[in-house]
Amino acid sequence: MDIRSLSSSHRHPQDAPYVHKVGLPPKQNLFKEFKDTVKETFFADDPLRSFKDQPRSKKFILGLQAIFPILEWGRSYSFAKFRGDLIAGQTIASLCIPQDIGYAKLANLDPQYGLYTSFVPPLIYAFMGSSRDIAIGPVAVVPLLLGTLLQSEIADPVANAAEYRRLAFTATFFAGITQVTLGFLRLGFLIDFLSHAAIVGFMGGAAITIALQQLKGFLGIKKFTKKTDIVSVMHSVFASARHGWNWQTIVIGVSLLSFLLFAKYIGKKNKRLFWVPAIGPLISVILSTFFVFITRADKDGVQIVKHMEKGINPSSVNQIYFSGDHLLKGVRIGIVAAMIALTEAIAIGRTFAAMKDYQLDGNKEMVALGTMNIVGSMTSCYVATGSFSRSAVNFMSGCQTAVSNIVMSIVVFLTLQFITPLFKYTPNAVLSAIIISAVIGLVDFDAAYLIWKIDKFDFVACMGAFFGVVFASVEIGLLIAVSISFFKLLLQVTRPRTAILGKLPRTAVYRNILQYPEATKVPGVLIVRVDSAIYFSNSNYIKERILRWLIDEEELVNKSSQPKIQFLVVEMSPVTDIDTSGIHALEELYRSLQKREIQLILANPGPVVIDKLHASDFAQLIGEDKIFLTVANAVAACSPKLVEEV
Amino acid sequence: MDIRSLSSSHRHPQDAPYVHKVGLPPKQNLFKEFKDTVKETFFADDPLRSFKDQPRSKKFILGLQAIFPILEWGRSYSFAKFRGDLIAGQTIASLCIPQDIGYAKLANLDPQYGLYTSFVPPLIYAFMGSSRDIAIGPVAVVPLLLGTLLQSEIADPVANAAEYRRLAFTATFFAGITQVTLGFLRLGFLIDFLSHAAIVGFMGGAAITIALQQLKGFLGIKKFTKKTDIVSVMHSVFASARHGWNWQTIVIGVSLLSFLLFAKYIGKKNKRLFWVPAIGPLISVILSTFFVFITRADKDGVQIVKHMEKGINPSSVNQIYFSGDHLLKGVRIGIVAAMIALTEAIAIGRTFAAMKDYQLDGNKEMVALGTMNIVGSMTSCYVATGSFSRSAVNFMSGCQTAVSNIVMSIVVFLTLQFITPLFKYTPNAVLSAIIISAVIGLVDFDAAYLIWKIDKFDFVACMGAFFGVVFASVEIGLLIAVSISFFKLLLQVTRPRTAILGKLPRTAVYRNILQYPEATKVPGVLIVRVDSAIYFSNSNYIKERILRWLIDEEELVNKSSQPKIQFLVVEMSPVTDIDTSGIHALEELYRSLQKREIQLILANPGPVVIDKLHASDFAQLIGEDKIFLTVANAVAACSPKLVEEV
Repeated sequence: MDIRSLSSSHRHPQDAPYVHKVGLPPKQNLFKEFKDTVKETFFADDPLRSFKDQPRSKKFILGLQAIFPILEWGRSYSFAKFRGDLIAGQTIASLCIPQDIGYAKLANLDPQYGLYTSFVPPLIYAFMGSSRDIAIGPVAVVPLLLGTLLQSEIADPVANAAEYRRLAFTATFFAGITQVTLGFLRLGFLIDFLSHAAIVGFMGGAAITIALQQLKGFLGIKKFTKKTDIVSVMHSVFASARHGWNWQTIVIGVSLLSFLLFAKYIGKKNKRLFWVPAIGPLISVILSTFFVFITRADKDGVQIVKHMEKGINPSSVNQIYFSGDHLLKGVRIGIVAAMIALTEAIAIGRTFAAMKDYQLDGNKEMVALGTMNIVGSMTSCYVATGSFSRSAVNFMSGCQTAVSNIVMSIVVFLTLQFITPLFKYTPNAVLSAIIISAVIGLVDFDAAYLIWKIDKFDFVACMGAFFGVVFASVEIGLLIAVSISFFKLLLQVTRPRTAILGKLPRTAVYRNILQYPEATKVPGVLIVRVDSAIYFSNSNYIKERILRWLIDEEELVNKSSQPKIQFLVVEMSPVTDIDTSGIHALEELYRSLQKREIQLILANPGPVVIDKLHASDFAQLIGEDKIFLTVANAVAACSPKLVEEV
Repeated sequence: MDIRSLSSSHRHPQDAPYVHKVGLPPKQNLFKEFKDTVKETFFADDPLRSFKDQPRSKKFILGLQAIFPILEWGRSYSFAKFRGDLIAGQTIASLCIPQDIGYAKLANLDPQYGLYTSFVPPLIYAFMGSSRDIAIGPVAVVPLLLGTLLQSEIADPVANAAEYRRLAFTATFFAGITQVTLGFLRLGFLIDFLSHAAIVGFMGGAAITIALQQLKGFLGIKKFTKKTDIVSVMHSVFASARHGWNWQTIVIGVSLLSFLLFAKYIGKKNKRLFWVPAIGPLISVILSTFFVFITRADKDGVQIVKHMEKGINPSSVNQIYFSGDHLLKGVRIGIVAAMIALTEAIAIGRTFAAMKDYQLDGNKEMVALGTMNIVGSMTSCYVATGSFSRSAVNFMSGCQTAVSNIVMSIVVFLTLQFITPLFKYTPNAVLSAIIISAVIGLVDFDAAYLIWKIDKFDFVACMGAFFGVVFASVEIGLLIAVSISFFKLLLQVTRPRTAILGKLPRTAVYRNILQYPEATKVPGVLIVRVDSAIYFSNSNYIKERILRWLIDEEELVNKSSQPKIQFLVVEMSPVTDIDTSGIHALEELYRSLQKREIQLILANPGPVVIDKLHASDFAQLIGEDKIFLTVANAVAACSPKLVEEV
């Protein structure tokens, strides 16, 4: 082949002084090809890199360290690092305790279950997780989702409290199993299918929904709808306006919310005062509890926490449903909750890993998060994950390692053991105020505006998810988000872009004439670039689109009496792959062009494509000397023939 | 921007004599952008092109011609064309009549329903269809699918014949509705999601399954399984071996099958004798019927057709279920059958259109095929579509237009009116032999081998569909085929390729060093090409893959004590689009590189990408002078700095 293409390139020495031939990559072994594909798909991050060329004992230690990263970073742990972790851990503990109590209510569970979930899971994560900045515990979206899904199975969470709780633990258990399984099977990339835009919309919608749910505690309403959509909630709120609102509750709620928002504002204005919003919730809890205790406002209808179990997590192993009707329900709810929890945790982990420039193995993280939820489900916890707001506080308070999670866990342990009775007089309104001020930050207008600026289709996905959550339910919103995201991917593989190229003045570079209006077409030659792999899903479209470009161009040429089109150059640089349907489409294109007496020419096919062009004998069909390294070479080979004929 | 980039390009006049700036396409109106996307997605073939700038009366005529293409080509119809159509029509009629009777049995319907389906639908298609070569009628795969699906709803098609028939008409009606709807909504591209490889496998599997089903008639077995998988069928065959086979039937079957296969062989050897296999079935029916009539072999246990209704299609409008339980079943079966029927018809239409170089509007074809099935369902027909084998005979017999379908239809009409009683003594064995010889051609070893050579993944899809159909059922096979096809598309958007580029000797061209081993890397510069749009589904992978290339390269550089990597050039020619997740990934990549003191440089972003890089301020973040038109320009800009520092 070498000799032939060299001789063909020497045919017009005056035009192209040196034409490099198109490379045909060395034939690959079938097994190697398969191995490479599997490796790129499932082991793209090359997790066994450090194991290579190591003695067996070292491999064992490395393996242990891979499962328990604490064994690796623990060896270089120092007092200086501990100081950072101690401060950060105390700060996030003071933030999480009041949030936990509120989030437990969101999941229709008793308040202590929130604290349980901030005790065991962070401990497990500290040993197995590889993120240094994530703060583990209950977060706003997961209990909302869990509450909605569980309520759709068990109508009355108060009357059937035990059954409800058991289903919650079952869902948590299977959420953990799902996460571990995804991690072990290295299917972590599945969570990438929820696009950033969809997450922004979903989170914003969930925040609005959660805030609306808090109106119950905030306004002291007794009869409240169980649905989460805005229409039902507003109906509940206004229906109860005349006799259901409690003014004392509203006074407490509004004044504390103002305080919390002001604290947030201070923290935002001056980064060094980040601790003000971080301890704000705890202060407001203490103040309001003391106030209610003094004034006994609970006798005037201000709802309070009343009772909170003392002591650490009881075992819940025998409460998980492993058979019967509830097993399947638990599995279903668990899978959905697992995916949402993963999406949030991995996004947080990646964000902070990028900030401090360390690598995060998504699959390993999933195993850690899953294990912590499995253990959690056996110790009376519901689904825990990484909290964005608390992780940010953790980061800003100077956390160094996952030890900050251990510190937080210890503080929660002390709280459970000694302080819970003090929460008796804590008004529900302060919990509502804390949750509202926490979730308000999830409505990210800037991100939505940026999405609008960058990609209109993404914006539709974002708004679809947002309005789906707000006006229908969390599930519907999620479904809309996933569907739109998938539709976009399918659109990409079905309707790829094509472009007409022209020569940039004073260069040998050919570019899209829509992007470079100064680029000039070569008379008698039509140059089309195909911007995608040619697969069964788009091969027919690409063939017909190229023919349509040709028809358009011929009309134009006829009108302006320019020379007839005699060559169609297909620039294949972006065509990374082609399958049998794609080869068929090229053959059909070639035949159609032959009938019109137009020569098909290919420029720069990649390694996979040139390999398949040869395997299918298409290269022989159009002639190997019709395949060029660059568009410039192809045009140079066409031009003399054009000159001859004119 | 013009001045700034010109000045930046003039910084190193000795290296790059002229550096063209990267074009920023003119800002598009949001509405226009949206319109263009919708147009490319749903009206890619520009169907209203001929309507442009026409007076209203002309538009009306064009509209009528669009719905009934016969009004267009009918005006130039001539006697010469009619001669071709007359011969072709008679040939396909002689082929279809025996096939129809056999296919009706495959769908568990009485034999006359096959002939009904060859009478009405071809007539309708002739007026509305735009393919000149397709032969309409019942085909092997559709009745097999219909038979399987209907039997899964109605267990005994003999005992509940009337109910079974009604459900068949209902399914046919909704198959037509589905096809018309897909065509009107211009969703024709949906059938492109069944890849060529999957179809080859599916068809091969269906052919084997159909041939196995024929063993019942071929061996004269009375008790036969209702399942279609090879295990159940072979079990049936061997279980009945001792007392269930009829030697007279076998003699008839084997001798006629040999005759038919020999006729096929002759037709293949000598293209001019194509009519031999075409009339073979009719001759064998006549011979065997006469033989049974003379010998009264039916008294010795040779099964015969016995009775066949005389007269044309009775109305079946009032037999379609428009309510009740059966409605939903009919809709479900109809949708599946519609998709398979469309896939076959469109593939045939496109193949012959490419051979004769005329355009086929897939969406218009769907409307035509759908209408013909809707009318068919009201006149006692089941789902009809284009038959590949008969279309090929039609083409070779010299058909000119869809008039050949009208001729065939008239012959079938005459058969129904006058000849059906003569089929009484036709042995079932001859019908089985005809079907076996017809479907055997659907097992396409050459195509499967070509698929193996071109794309191993396609081959897996092909084999998956094949074995799914043969060992499980038509439905399972179809499901496997669609799943594997989708998985491949998802793989493409999740794990795109990346490549390290090097400079080809004696050129300014940079290419994949795996494809061009002679290409040399530029010291201190790593050039990576990303071969896909950067979307949420792959943005994270791309970022991490680029960083891994960098780590690998740095290890290599350290070992060989070459200059340190100082620049990372990302060649973006194949990156046709980027979304918000993609921009985030680039930002994270930029930050990681900053920490390592490596400068990120982009080469040749396309129009959409450069637009979004500016909208998101990423271009400003890395510096607009870090974005170059070509890799060569980018390298030229890096080199002087490298020289300074070494």
